[in-house]
Amino acid sequence: MITQTFGGGGGRTAVASRYINGSRVVKNLLKRVASLFISISIGFGVLPAVAEDGYELWLRYEQLEARPADAPRHVMAACAEPSETLQAALAEIERATESLLGNSLQSTDRLRSRTLVLASADCADAIDEADLPTTEAVGAEGFALRATKLNGKRVTLIAAQSDLGVLYGTFDYLQRMSRGEALTDLDVISRPKTKLRLLNHWDNLDRHVERGYAGQSIWDWHRLPDYLDPKYTDYARANASIGINGVSLTNVNADATVLTAPYLEKVAALADIFRPYGIRIYLTARFSAPMELGGLDTADPRDAEVQAWWQAKVDEIYAHVPDFGGFLVKANSEGQPGPQDYERSHAEGANMLATALAPHEGIVMWRAFVYSAEEPEDRVKQAYTEFVPLDGQFADNVLVQVKNGPLDFQPREPFHPLFGAMPETPLMMELQITKEYLGFSTHLAYLGTLWEEVLSADTHAEGEGTSVASVIDGVAQEYELTGMAGVANIGSDRNWSGSVFDQANWYAFGRLAWDPDASSEAIARDWVEQTLSRAPEVADEITGMMMGSREAVVNYMTPLGLTHLMGTGHHYGPAPWVDDLGRADWTPYYYHKATKDAVGFDRTETGSGAVDQYAGPVAQEWASLDTVPDELLLWFHRVPWDYQLSNGQTLWQELVNRYDRGVSAVGVMQAQWASLENEIDVERFAQVSAFLGIQHQEAIWWRDASIAYWQSVNGLPLPEGAEPPAHDLDHYKSLSFPNAPGQGE
Amino acid sequence: MITQTFGGGGGRTAVASRYINGSRVVKNLLKRVASLFISISIGFGVLPAVAEDGYELWLRYEQLEARPADAPRHVMAACAEPSETLQAALAEIERATESLLGNSLQSTDRLRSRTLVLASADCADAIDEADLPTTEAVGAEGFALRATKLNGKRVTLIAAQSDLGVLYGTFDYLQRMSRGEALTDLDVISRPKTKLRLLNHWDNLDRHVERGYAGQSIWDWHRLPDYLDPKYTDYARANASIGINGVSLTNVNADATVLTAPYLEKVAALADIFRPYGIRIYLTARFSAPMELGGLDTADPRDAEVQAWWQAKVDEIYAHVPDFGGFLVKANSEGQPGPQDYERSHAEGANMLATALAPHEGIVMWRAFVYSAEEPEDRVKQAYTEFVPLDGQFADNVLVQVKNGPLDFQPREPFHPLFGAMPETPLMMELQITKEYLGFSTHLAYLGTLWEEVLSADTHAEGEGTSVASVIDGVAQEYELTGMAGVANIGSDRNWSGSVFDQANWYAFGRLAWDPDASSEAIARDWVEQTLSRAPEVADEITGMMMGSREAVVNYMTPLGLTHLMGTGHHYGPAPWVDDLGRADWTPYYYHKATKDAVGFDRTETGSGAVDQYAGPVAQEWASLDTVPDELLLWFHRVPWDYQLSNGQTLWQELVNRYDRGVSAVGVMQAQWASLENEIDVERFAQVSAFLGIQHQEAIWWRDASIAYWQSVNGLPLPEGAEPPAHDLDHYKSLSFPNAPGQGE
Repeated sequence: MITQTFGGGGGRTAVASRYINGSRVVKNLLKRVASLFISISIGFGVLPAVAEDGYELWLRYEQLEARPADAPRHVMAACAEPSETLQAALAEIERATESLLGNSLQSTDRLRSRTLVLASADCADAIDEADLPTTEAVGAEGFALRATKLNGKRVTLIAAQSDLGVLYGTFDYLQRMSRGEALTDLDVISRPKTKLRLLNHWDNLDRHVERGYAGQSIWDWHRLPDYLDPKYTDYARANASIGINGVSLTNVNADATVLTAPYLEKVAALADIFRPYGIRIYLTARFSAPMELGGLDTADPRDAEVQAWWQAKVDEIYAHVPDFGGFLVKANSEGQPGPQDYERSHAEGANMLATALAPHEGIVMWRAFVYSAEEPEDRVKQAYTEFVPLDGQFADNVLVQVKNGPLDFQPREPFHPLFGAMPETPLMMELQITKEYLGFSTHLAYLGTLWEEVLSADTHAEGEGTSVASVIDGVAQEYELTGMAGVANIGSDRNWSGSVFDQANWYAFGRLAWDPDASSEAIARDWVEQTLSRAPEVADEITGMMMGSREAVVNYMTPLGLTHLMGTGHHYGPAPWVDDLGRADWTPYYYHKATKDAVGFDRTETGSGAVDQYAGPVAQEWASLDTVPDELLLWFHRVPWDYQLSNGQTLWQELVNRYDRGVSAVGVMQAQWASLENEIDVERFAQVSAFLGIQHQEAIWWRDASIAYWQSVNGLPLPEGAEPPAHDLDHYKSLSFPNAPGQGE
Repeated sequence: MITQTFGGGGGRTAVASRYINGSRVVKNLLKRVASLFISISIGFGVLPAVAEDGYELWLRYEQLEARPADAPRHVMAACAEPSETLQAALAEIERATESLLGNSLQSTDRLRSRTLVLASADCADAIDEADLPTTEAVGAEGFALRATKLNGKRVTLIAAQSDLGVLYGTFDYLQRMSRGEALTDLDVISRPKTKLRLLNHWDNLDRHVERGYAGQSIWDWHRLPDYLDPKYTDYARANASIGINGVSLTNVNADATVLTAPYLEKVAALADIFRPYGIRIYLTARFSAPMELGGLDTADPRDAEVQAWWQAKVDEIYAHVPDFGGFLVKANSEGQPGPQDYERSHAEGANMLATALAPHEGIVMWRAFVYSAEEPEDRVKQAYTEFVPLDGQFADNVLVQVKNGPLDFQPREPFHPLFGAMPETPLMMELQITKEYLGFSTHLAYLGTLWEEVLSADTHAEGEGTSVASVIDGVAQEYELTGMAGVANIGSDRNWSGSVFDQANWYAFGRLAWDPDASSEAIARDWVEQTLSRAPEVADEITGMMMGSREAVVNYMTPLGLTHLMGTGHHYGPAPWVDDLGRADWTPYYYHKATKDAVGFDRTETGSGAVDQYAGPVAQEWASLDTVPDELLLWFHRVPWDYQLSNGQTLWQELVNRYDRGVSAVGVMQAQWASLENEIDVERFAQVSAFLGIQHQEAIWWRDASIAYWQSVNGLPLPEGAEPPAHDLDHYKSLSFPNAPGQGE
């Protein structure tokens, strides 16, 4: 499509359009053939880079430099009346090929040479069913892509058992084409390793997004259900393109209002848009809703009226949304109501909801992110302590949703000790795509590496080689239900995620939910090629930036196992000095306990003993100062400032070194990006440049404020060669950010 | 520019691009000439309507059907080093002509035939200064457009005293071209009738917009000053294109934080972007800032420390923003602090700030929207009562900013009695572009007619013919300072204003601020031609829809002089029954006082006497039941339900008729719009259709809820033929809207 852009990138002109001052006769002659030429000139190479605001995400389908020799010419579905899902696939093919090839494939209703054929068990009239992949091979959602012959014609077959599988295969195929991969000998089978691949939106009904750094909620509740923003469809396309099959629309700090009839109508309107893309809707259930909406005196899960209220409410939801997915629940955590208010267990609470959902095949995702009002000696122990005894008590349609680490989405944490510790209870992993603790949307931090680190960690739960991924995907402990959830980083910003590179985190989440064993580097590279540039040297450079970016954040924020030192409430910027909040485990001080002599949290047997929540070999490695990796040192150990690390540096020297390394790494990213100025479109180039500038300033701020604080505690001089903080500690303490985005409300 | 759109409108393809399967040799041959053809084929008529999301506003510059015979070929500024403002004009010409004509004008550095020449007193090297319009003719901001001969060459001259005048002239010229007007005999002089033409943003620093229905604030404070969204530049362009020369960035319910150093850096970054476009920044000053930021014990304007604090603060602001415009102040109104807290007058408060600003040539805009905590007998009298005695007491650099009517931006009010009543004090008019009381952004209500009604009203202040416009523009009472302010309807929504038609209200505000005597119909037509369609029959139809739209809203919401019946707090939907709020004059009941016998607010001598605040002839007309127009009947009079109107109907019959008329008018707009489906691009057509559907539903809701309520009070049967309400009154009373957008926070 051609559209006028009215943006700052408007300096570039897309068409070399010099007016031809010919006579009218000549002009008319020219016009008659112009429509022939335009397809070619637009087709290949004539157009320079265009204005680009990031709205298209990784589905830009930027025109290929040349039409691939093996590109199909025609497209068909293998049945006369393709479903809405197959129609969505066909529409995507039209859109993508027009953009990638300069013209879209021609529809055909018979097998011809060079046809792209879509076929499923429900749409196989035009092919031999034997050409479909078996259920054993692709399951309910997987697909096969094959360059093959049908009826003697060379075709490319996108085939699956289900129409949704075909849609996933279509997106996979088009993204391969978009990356410029050879398609001649295509022979791919892919199926998701997890069943539930969900985004969790922490979006309030007033459109404030808790921990959102990309504008306000994309759910325009006020104008729903009557106005259906085209953005909702593009959101569904983007999600389907990476295999996401469910969305929880509302904040886990839940508002029961979303369960009222007017809101259910709005929810139903979204469900209708998402359905062809295989995306089911889930809602967050406020545990006290029977009191707030139903006027009951209690929300006790054993109360018959409460149970009846939920059953009626669930039935009402399904009347609006027949394929409703179920509830996501945060209960007895950070002030949310829950079953413990009535001295019932999490299992009883979850099962009460599960009972109401079961007749409709709905599920409950019950979050394990809990910590009691009583302030246990070590907050990171609590989820394990509370949930392990409940193993085996949850209904079959309940999953327990566990954050990747035992604290709260820090730049680095060890994997959560619950993984592997609840063999009778399916555990979903909850990742945070939005970067609450990693610099919001202005810091470049590719999270694929963080997630891969967790997923590939060995729990030893069923012996050596029991990776977290193998727990999550159900293989290790034979879970029937499996899933991954990502806390969305999506908002009303034009580029969806607040920054170009945060789009990569959305993308990587989907890819890893599909395959928790995938390589974060391969995912990054795919994203770069689809989103920024197919040029190999450019893609190399950007992939390299991404792969090192999270470690840079760890280094300038919380090196060597330090954690949760962010500014209170908003989590923006450093505040290691804060030690006076309502409860100790909300303060940064709680997590480092720095004194003149030592720093770190002793979680060994001499301390909280949290390390013993891990399986033997893991606990052993991390409990010993000799074997604990430097990256987790201060997470598990309290260490003197002059403790000598294996590299010969003292703790203090190494700490300062790491801060410097983090700052330098951002400087290197700036230089790398600057070198790409001619390779990237103007608007995105400028935004990334500006954000890297912010990140560099803030990395220095983190380093300097942290060092100034540690020095105020340990009284040590700076290691030789280290740059002193730009300001004194009082300056850093004086900064306040009342309007930092994304705060809880 | 050409860009991939990834939107719901994507069903249409912009280029008829069928792939040509020629041999490589042929293809290469074709490619060599393709660049010639493409400019022509894109040039005229080949491309169908394109996807359009409204971002370009009235500056779409949609390609002309044919290149005008008299279009210039070249462009030049009449000096070697044009200022940033002239560069902005040149950039706009490039952008616009490329889009309108298919190619942009060629730069030239010497006078040639068919050149568009930009010249000002500071940029006149290439022309005879006598060719510039005089200061007498165009003032500091006006311009002349002339098709003329210079050095024997036929040129078009855009000339002014100032560079800003040239920029305004450039926008005027390009918009004429965009409307398809003949430019051959161009001879235009235009100058603004008011000096200050300001948008007032009611934007909080957390990006919530009070009374905002277009997403969140476009000011991304968190990422400022380091990231400069390209949108800021487009905002400046749009404003300059309609003559707006100032912006108050922050809510009148002010947060002193914006006056702190970190925020002033952010403000300065915006000022740097706006400066070339002639837009100065103003801030809202929280009167208690010396206490909140300065730690003083008082904000008493007579206190020397307070005065010194403001002087230092103002100096600090000017160090950041050398062309800072000044302060907008809401004081002693709805809980805001102000001089009356210290028993000082509004004049003393304003003058204290004015003294600090005067050395920098800054000004104070002091709002007259006040009503005391004591609840006077009639709230609409209070501004007049408080401010008229202060006439003559304000410093020279103070304006008093007065809303168009004495209440609060209702669908219809009489003009504010202060207009004409303060001959010694320049009064600015404050209009509300955002539609707090007219259905938010989903109701189509063109406000040009509302504003024209007020501006053309005769105050009789200096004898017959003293229009409100003549007060505002300073002619009637010889104000030195003059101005109009519009409360912005701009937010982060892609289309800026939340709906296509609300863009017209932004546009109309600018045009009326430039010329308060302008015709709202001519303005509407210009906007339609630039924004939606130049086709005469299409433009006729849409202009017609717009011209009747506000009266429709009056009819279905508050006919016959009823007022302020909107839902409490959010002002969404009808709630005439509310009578139990903290203070009576916040309740709808206060404004209608309906009983079994009568309805309306007696503001004659038997009632509050408010009508006597108007000049004699006006007061006389409105005080008498014989002469008061039906449209203001219940505003000024309390009338029995069976009172007979001049058309023979009883009040009750006519009231019900008017509700029906309002609903029907929306139905007609729906039909009119539906008839334009093939004339309007897909995405905007669909959005307007959906919004008209919402408006129709809500018009019925307004009518039915209002009639149900009036019947519950007066016990009267429905007039014959009237449709009964769809629900009973309890239903309407039961509706609640906790998350309605735009609420005060």
